[in-house]
Amino acid sequence: MNKVVGWESSVFHKDKLDGNILGRGYDRIMNELAYRVKEASIKLAGAGTEQKNKALAQIAQSLKNSKEEIIKANREDLLRSEKENLPLPLLKRLKFDESKIEDVVDGIFSLINLEDPVGKTLLSTELDDGLELYKVTCPIGVIGVIFESRPDALVQISTLCLKSGNGVLLKGGSEARETNRVLAGVIVRATEEAGIPPNWAALLETRSDVSAMLKMDKYIDLIIPRGSNDFVRYIMDNSRIPVMGHADGICHCYVDEDADIDMAVKIVVDSKTQYVAVCNAAETLLVHEKTAPDFLPELKKALESKRVELIGCPKTCAVIPATPASEEDWKTEYLDYKLSVKMVSGLDEAIDHINTYGSGHTDIILTGDKKKAAQFMDYVDSGNVFWNCSTRFSDGFRYGFGAEVGISTGKIHSRGPVGLEGLVIYKYKLIGNGHIVGDYSNRSRNFSHKKINRDFSL
Amino acid sequence: MNKVVGWESSVFHKDKLDGNILGRGYDRIMNELAYRVKEASIKLAGAGTEQKNKALAQIAQSLKNSKEEIIKANREDLLRSEKENLPLPLLKRLKFDESKIEDVVDGIFSLINLEDPVGKTLLSTELDDGLELYKVTCPIGVIGVIFESRPDALVQISTLCLKSGNGVLLKGGSEARETNRVLAGVIVRATEEAGIPPNWAALLETRSDVSAMLKMDKYIDLIIPRGSNDFVRYIMDNSRIPVMGHADGICHCYVDEDADIDMAVKIVVDSKTQYVAVCNAAETLLVHEKTAPDFLPELKKALESKRVELIGCPKTCAVIPATPASEEDWKTEYLDYKLSVKMVSGLDEAIDHINTYGSGHTDIILTGDKKKAAQFMDYVDSGNVFWNCSTRFSDGFRYGFGAEVGISTGKIHSRGPVGLEGLVIYKYKLIGNGHIVGDYSNRSRNFSHKKINRDFSL
Repeated sequence: MNKVVGWESSVFHKDKLDGNILGRGYDRIMNELAYRVKEASIKLAGAGTEQKNKALAQIAQSLKNSKEEIIKANREDLLRSEKENLPLPLLKRLKFDESKIEDVVDGIFSLINLEDPVGKTLLSTELDDGLELYKVTCPIGVIGVIFESRPDALVQISTLCLKSGNGVLLKGGSEARETNRVLAGVIVRATEEAGIPPNWAALLETRSDVSAMLKMDKYIDLIIPRGSNDFVRYIMDNSRIPVMGHADGICHCYVDEDADIDMAVKIVVDSKTQYVAVCNAAETLLVHEKTAPDFLPELKKALESKRVELIGCPKTCAVIPATPASEEDWKTEYLDYKLSVKMVSGLDEAIDHINTYGSGHTDIILTGDKKKAAQFMDYVDSGNVFWNCSTRFSDGFRYGFGAEVGISTGKIHSRGPVGLEGLVIYKYKLIGNGHIVGDYSNRSRNFSHKKINRDFSL
Repeated sequence: MNKVVGWESSVFHKDKLDGNILGRGYDRIMNELAYRVKEASIKLAGAGTEQKNKALAQIAQSLKNSKEEIIKANREDLLRSEKENLPLPLLKRLKFDESKIEDVVDGIFSLINLEDPVGKTLLSTELDDGLELYKVTCPIGVIGVIFESRPDALVQISTLCLKSGNGVLLKGGSEARETNRVLAGVIVRATEEAGIPPNWAALLETRSDVSAMLKMDKYIDLIIPRGSNDFVRYIMDNSRIPVMGHADGICHCYVDEDADIDMAVKIVVDSKTQYVAVCNAAETLLVHEKTAPDFLPELKKALESKRVELIGCPKTCAVIPATPASEEDWKTEYLDYKLSVKMVSGLDEAIDHINTYGSGHTDIILTGDKKKAAQFMDYVDSGNVFWNCSTRFSDGFRYGFGAEVGISTGKIHSRGPVGLEGLVIYKYKLIGNGHIVGDYSNRSRNFSHKKINRDFSL
């Protein structure tokens, strides 16, 4: 069991761990590893923007310099995984070639240009003469990231954590282990050269590491799982550490009686077919019964060239040819060229359906009626609610966030596409000059609570 | 077991439940109850500020009008609890007399005057011509509140939920059941008169209800436990619903070598003794070894009149008489006239000690050195970090938030004293005019991502 722990850095190389720590038992090693990341994260919290950006530039440079080593490691992973009959889509994701390296390097340069999310003053109040309160953003602490085959996720998420000042425990898929080891090693060495505490990032490799990680609420503040829906749901069900992400993306298009039919057809086609395998693709169409006779045949025609299978409620099947839908269809994320269609009596039924069967991801209304659009946006309980545009816009890059941590369907902290600001929280900093509460309690002093609109600095 | 469900409103009276629903099994009833609160919360999310404030004023009026009924019910609870030998401190908390009613009514009027946290535009961006993105605050959904004996918690938390547009499941202590039933009934009837959906609040009464509640992640979005540390920890350990609150409050004062000794004595005395039974009282004093010989005897003198027991590390015991400290003392929240004292070699050791043994609540540095203060505030991983003022300032009212949901030691969503804004999240509203992603993917259109600084309205 001891072989499972890997920590690719110049400080904690796996070989060193084998020699020095592995006698001490798996749980203690995992704890020590997480403790050291936590410890480093405290120091990283105080790193300045310039230092972090310098470290990011160093990572980009090192990745370019280590191109051959990375590609060689990735070839090993691909060969082994092919022999082990890894399914083709997973092999595709596993592949990390020169163009993928260029992509992640480009990503790092965009990240450098983004504003530092740490150290922003959100609120400043003078509580009394000489007693000033500041609410200032700071890193969350240690992020646990669990991802499946794609090695680019390792680079993306660790650089996002670095920019936001968080330590990170990375658990990659075992099929990508050689690539991940090289990547993690390159990243940690590059940041060390820029003066970042070396233990800020650590790599884990096996399933037992995941189980251990899910229990380390003492050291890990937030888990971000990246992978299939089942995988994400498993993580959410098996940890008391907060999890940021989404399992299902059951997105709805509601075509109202006042919709412009041509526009609605165009938007539903885009929502369903622009890229079917992603969480923000539409899965269910709700259509007003008055619009259905005009709209559905047009939609059917438009979807034919894309070979989209329509799965309809009985009323839908009476208007266009469609596979009869079962209750299960309304709960299903097809991620495929399939669309379930339900006729509804109006806005209220559409909202009820979405709030019952939806996953809180992205839902849209197509209507010419502003009042109905406003109601839909108020009452649909989802992170993203759109009027007259495609579900596919629900994305951090399209929203202009620059970098995306992921999309959250949770109801606290961060919701919808999450940018860097999802990796920070805040602390209250209070500066006094001998102030004690006793003086306010006996009313010899009084609070002023004046807004001061000043950024924190000492 | 069926008797345990209570829902005090004109719609779901316990008696009605007994007759209509109780044949159907406990789990189904609990589910139906939570479902109806969820359903009402969706409507409540669209309620305007004026309507919510009207409902709050109505609650205040009804509480005043129902004074006698409330006090009578509370007397029943007190008598029964006395017979059942409820400890005196709990009996005190249980008491809900005329002055307590006046307090909660005053609290409701302050709440009316606070800004509505719902409907604030946090971000507005033009993604392209006619495609506008707004990030707008909205209620979280349904809050589960679990509180022990104090009936005023029921009024406070349900009115906070109402102002922030959230549905609420309230579970009070069984010792306060008569008082809670009357209070919940008054609140729900009053809000119904103001047009608020009647099922927005429901009252639960037994331990089995708590277990059921902790499992209802389908309907409950956030749990706020109010009570003893053990109680809060139990809740945190037994639900996968996010929990907002704190278990321990192990707050530290660090007296640096550059501290003004008189000021430090005054602040440590206030932090420890101004009110010992609360989470923001100091529990551990860390003192620089160079300052200790001057500071500790002064502190000892000042604390004598308050009869504070000092529990010291070996070095401390060599300077002043103190009970020898064990490892356990550094992890203990005394909530009593006791203070553990440790001598440290400097700022780094102080920060390490706090990050190891602290609970992330409130920690202070007393020093004349600005640079050290800045380091302390950067590296101490707590929600509240203060310079030269008492730990006791860590409080929503003192911070000027007006109303306080509680104090959170979590690392995501809300941290430190939490005001109304801790009960809201946001959704992204995107308004288009037929925009589809295909056009951006094939580059026939481009994103502009211009900030527009406009509040959302349709």
